[in-house]
Amino acid sequence: MDMQVKDLYPSRTGGEARWLPRVDPVVWGEADQPGDFALNQQQLDSFDENGFIILEGAVEDLVAPIQKELEAMKEQLLGREELVIEPDSKELRSIFQPHFFSEYIKKVARDPRLLDIARQLLGDDVYLHQSRVNVKPGMKGRSFPWHSDFETWHVEDGMPQMRAVTGWIMLTENDPFNGPLFLIPGSHKHYLSCAGTTPEDNYKQSLRKQEAGTPDLASLDWLIQEGGGLAGAFGKPGTLVFHECNIMHGSPDNLASYPRTNLFFVYNSIKNGCKAPFSGQKPRPAFLASRDTQPLEPLKEPLK
Amino acid sequence: MDMQVKDLYPSRTGGEARWLPRVDPVVWGEADQPGDFALNQQQLDSFDENGFIILEGAVEDLVAPIQKELEAMKEQLLGREELVIEPDSKELRSIFQPHFFSEYIKKVARDPRLLDIARQLLGDDVYLHQSRVNVKPGMKGRSFPWHSDFETWHVEDGMPQMRAVTGWIMLTENDPFNGPLFLIPGSHKHYLSCAGTTPEDNYKQSLRKQEAGTPDLASLDWLIQEGGGLAGAFGKPGTLVFHECNIMHGSPDNLASYPRTNLFFVYNSIKNGCKAPFSGQKPRPAFLASRDTQPLEPLKEPLK
Repeated sequence: MDMQVKDLYPSRTGGEARWLPRVDPVVWGEADQPGDFALNQQQLDSFDENGFIILEGAVEDLVAPIQKELEAMKEQLLGREELVIEPDSKELRSIFQPHFFSEYIKKVARDPRLLDIARQLLGDDVYLHQSRVNVKPGMKGRSFPWHSDFETWHVEDGMPQMRAVTGWIMLTENDPFNGPLFLIPGSHKHYLSCAGTTPEDNYKQSLRKQEAGTPDLASLDWLIQEGGGLAGAFGKPGTLVFHECNIMHGSPDNLASYPRTNLFFVYNSIKNGCKAPFSGQKPRPAFLASRDTQPLEPLKEPLK
Repeated sequence: MDMQVKDLYPSRTGGEARWLPRVDPVVWGEADQPGDFALNQQQLDSFDENGFIILEGAVEDLVAPIQKELEAMKEQLLGREELVIEPDSKELRSIFQPHFFSEYIKKVARDPRLLDIARQLLGDDVYLHQSRVNVKPGMKGRSFPWHSDFETWHVEDGMPQMRAVTGWIMLTENDPFNGPLFLIPGSHKHYLSCAGTTPEDNYKQSLRKQEAGTPDLASLDWLIQEGGGLAGAFGKPGTLVFHECNIMHGSPDNLASYPRTNLFFVYNSIKNGCKAPFSGQKPRPAFLASRDTQPLEPLKEPLK
């Protein structure tokens, strides 16, 4: 392990679950950040308070071309680790790093409607820590328990600080019925240092069903009371959402007959590149946690 | 089996799943039905079309006294078949026939705010086919797959016709997060004759996790397209809902930290009392399907 880096957010170190203070800002940039698509002060304040923002239909025009790219990709990736399959039904659940396999999707990550906001929230140049497509098939997509992404990225990938944000696009409608993302507003302000330790090669199991790093009932209840309830990320295809790296979120089963499909980009500040994992274990593979911190350059104008 | 009774709705007879026509009316009574709390014509039309109606906060004053009765009952019923427990966590999931064990809850079933509507919808005197409390504990209450209650009551209990309705009271908030009831509006107009046959003593397993009598993806999709989407029964404690016996419904996991608790009364027309089960098997026990068709007499005024 790299002894230069202090562990600001110890977790799964064998002790009991406990709350630790967040020592990082939520919003690292300013409202007058360059970029035509940066958030205004009111939107920044809302993100700071709630830990997420929903921009209804903001990139509607990208949905059809992205879906087309994904269709091509399914064939291309058969048998590769970047493809994750449902434990029961064997249906497609995730594609990791789709921007490696599609030039178009790489451009989507650089579209100023996304990248202006990511650079503003993190107050820095940014790179992609991870990207993925999550498909929850109708009637078969399973629930995912509550978790903070940052807790995993910190422990398993060595991401030092909370200076990352996920920007994601709804490729289908996300409604109360098809397994939408639920969030606890305000939960990003509290860090849950989790009990237990990390099993070796945890990712092979946790991408299907996470167990390490999930809160117990009392912790969850405290967060919900503290944060003032629960929220659902509902919207039509083309809705753009940003959620903070430490916000507690989860999702129920898809009970609808239609899929819930989303494309996620995890943007990380180039000053927050991953070190040795704080678990002391070997790093996860690059398709889950990139170590190439070369900054993304915004496209001059929105993708057509 | 009672050979007098024609099987209008054969299901699980060993063939393929298929759609059969509903031969019964949805609304059996009239808008000018006696009773201060009967539905008006607009409400009746909506029930006829959608197969359910939500009366927000209609019996708010009953919630606290019912909750008090349930607390007492948990102790009283330990070890009895009327108590159903979560498969994984062993927590309370259901109490069957609470009106057997509480005089107060028996009066709730006779409250004119419920009974006037049940008698009107069924156009007859009614009795209780079944009553139950369903608790979905926070973080632990599990999903329940899509099903028509009538399909089970017909096959396993010998209920001849679609002349029953469930009236139920939200004892906690029902929101998108705590495993609410989802319904397919209009699905009560179609009868899904299910594939397969009924395992012996199916109820012992099906109360925990139903498998027989659930639609496949194509059937579900057809219903959702035909009926125009999905609906959630959301509301504050004390909200009263009526849903038709053949409406397709299900519910997701409870991801919230707080329970979702509802009290259900299944009202059946006294002309529609149960015969021998159409499966040809022995009837389910009385706590699941009463054979005592003595009519409920409405209280003179709402419970205090």
